[in-house]
Amino acid sequence: MAVYTDINEIDLAAFLAEYDIGGLLSYKGIAEGVENSNYLLHTEKGSFILTLYEKRVNRGDLPFFLGLMQHLAGKGIDCPLPVHQKNGAMIGELAGRPAAIVTFLEGMWMRRPTVAHCQAVGEALARMHLAGLDFPMRRENALSVSGWRPLWDNAKDRADEVEQGLAAETEADLAFLEANWPSDLPVGVIHADLFPDNVFFLGTRLSGLIDFYFACTDLLAYDVAVCLNAWCFEKDFSFNLTKGTALLRGYNSVRPLSADEAGALPVLARGAALRFMLTRLYDWLTVPDGSFVVKKDPMEYIRRMRFHRQIHSPVEYGLVLKGVDA
Amino acid sequence: MAVYTDINEIDLAAFLAEYDIGGLLSYKGIAEGVENSNYLLHTEKGSFILTLYEKRVNRGDLPFFLGLMQHLAGKGIDCPLPVHQKNGAMIGELAGRPAAIVTFLEGMWMRRPTVAHCQAVGEALARMHLAGLDFPMRRENALSVSGWRPLWDNAKDRADEVEQGLAAETEADLAFLEANWPSDLPVGVIHADLFPDNVFFLGTRLSGLIDFYFACTDLLAYDVAVCLNAWCFEKDFSFNLTKGTALLRGYNSVRPLSADEAGALPVLARGAALRFMLTRLYDWLTVPDGSFVVKKDPMEYIRRMRFHRQIHSPVEYGLVLKGVDA
Repeated sequence: MAVYTDINEIDLAAFLAEYDIGGLLSYKGIAEGVENSNYLLHTEKGSFILTLYEKRVNRGDLPFFLGLMQHLAGKGIDCPLPVHQKNGAMIGELAGRPAAIVTFLEGMWMRRPTVAHCQAVGEALARMHLAGLDFPMRRENALSVSGWRPLWDNAKDRADEVEQGLAAETEADLAFLEANWPSDLPVGVIHADLFPDNVFFLGTRLSGLIDFYFACTDLLAYDVAVCLNAWCFEKDFSFNLTKGTALLRGYNSVRPLSADEAGALPVLARGAALRFMLTRLYDWLTVPDGSFVVKKDPMEYIRRMRFHRQIHSPVEYGLVLKGVDA
Repeated sequence: MAVYTDINEIDLAAFLAEYDIGGLLSYKGIAEGVENSNYLLHTEKGSFILTLYEKRVNRGDLPFFLGLMQHLAGKGIDCPLPVHQKNGAMIGELAGRPAAIVTFLEGMWMRRPTVAHCQAVGEALARMHLAGLDFPMRRENALSVSGWRPLWDNAKDRADEVEQGLAAETEADLAFLEANWPSDLPVGVIHADLFPDNVFFLGTRLSGLIDFYFACTDLLAYDVAVCLNAWCFEKDFSFNLTKGTALLRGYNSVRPLSADEAGALPVLARGAALRFMLTRLYDWLTVPDGSFVVKKDPMEYIRRMRFHRQIHSPVEYGLVLKGVDA
């Protein structure tokens, strides 16, 4: 759920006067996105999303996020296109917050993705990676390996409240990942949060990628590892090898993973699970009950960490190695 | 905020197969309405609202609410029109809840209504009253005078937690209203909850009335009294006589209040304030903090009760009495 900020019609009319999107017909706060307030606008020219950036988003990062969407859309990637104000700006201010308007993408996110959806998301991720290679801006990934220890330091004393022994278990994982994190793999723009709720489909056709507000410059294969975590586990935390195979086949069909990238998948997937576990744990321990921020269970990612710890080869995720194939 | 129930694409597709509204393009949970879960659907045939009725709504009342919208829309009132399933039904089931689809109305609700909006809502209310006169179904108002004491009995022991002395003050008001509630005024279908968030405008033109889920059969003038409470007080609880005048002029221009109805306005307005105070007080004391039900401050209506207690003539609300006019 996310409508943290209500907008009144007077402020909104003044804001929209800066745009050339036709007369406003309606605006509805929508319960999607966790970090920001989102409104679905109907205007005489179509449907748009208006986002108010709440305090968890760093204002200085907005040109990267919005510039990236514009860059990707220009390369044919189906993603929201930022709408420029008459003065050329992509970022305005509304209700005391930075605000932007992007085009609305039709499509539904899959609560129950199938194998076909996993293959499509693999393909789309690879296309996004290729399209982003010449994007000129850079943004460090604050939530990559170097960012995990500070998060952990804020949570570790209370980690055993979630499960007895979790503190020692996580400490060991973190030390392992810090010592073994790859550094010489191909780098580019990654989405970094390509969960099912950020991918729209019309039937089995992927109609768009949304929510680039964690996008950054990092190892491309790490984005694949995030998707393995996000798309290929069932609700009982079992890994669905058929989905993993489909996702990796989709990715490889557009941008084949190098042998080094493939070999690093187990450690990258373990790190991705730790990354989501840590932010969830942090929220779990620090966000007050009853806040409108939805608190997600960190245990879902501890279960994934344990799975990845036992993986020795990317073949176990479903990757078909060259030479072995056919 | 209200999306209590998430819907998955499989259940939704099965539900929509019963309708002839074209292929589904998107569905977004929207943060409007307090009692139910609402989704904005885009289909190949346009925009629709899908409502899942949560437990606060009595399933047996749905034929009245949906039948009323159909009746009113058929008489030219701008309100959502229920969409029938292929088998003729207006009510289906989705995610274990009764569910219905209605047409989407463009328009914005006014966070800051002006005098012109108040006049328009008065006119629209009167038109709705006339259009409802031959609606054949009946529904008692569970939240009229006979329903207040049971609510009060559940809250009175803790009322002084809200403000010292509130218990005695409310007890006296309730006794007065029970003794003086009018019974011989014109009766018909009333909206009973026509607050600004249930009235849409495009500019100053009223584009629709929504949310008929408190509608019932009761004194028509009581609905006017609800609107005086809902539309004509400023944020500092002062009564805006210009807005009151406009609202009553709008109403009278379509359906003139009788002398008896006009004379009863002070007691009806006092009762309407008590009704909203009581349900807010009940929620305030019983709904846990952090629930997704938004708890509204009962003091806003205690302040209105105090105002109405001092009113002796409808002229003080802005009513222009016949003969005095011109």
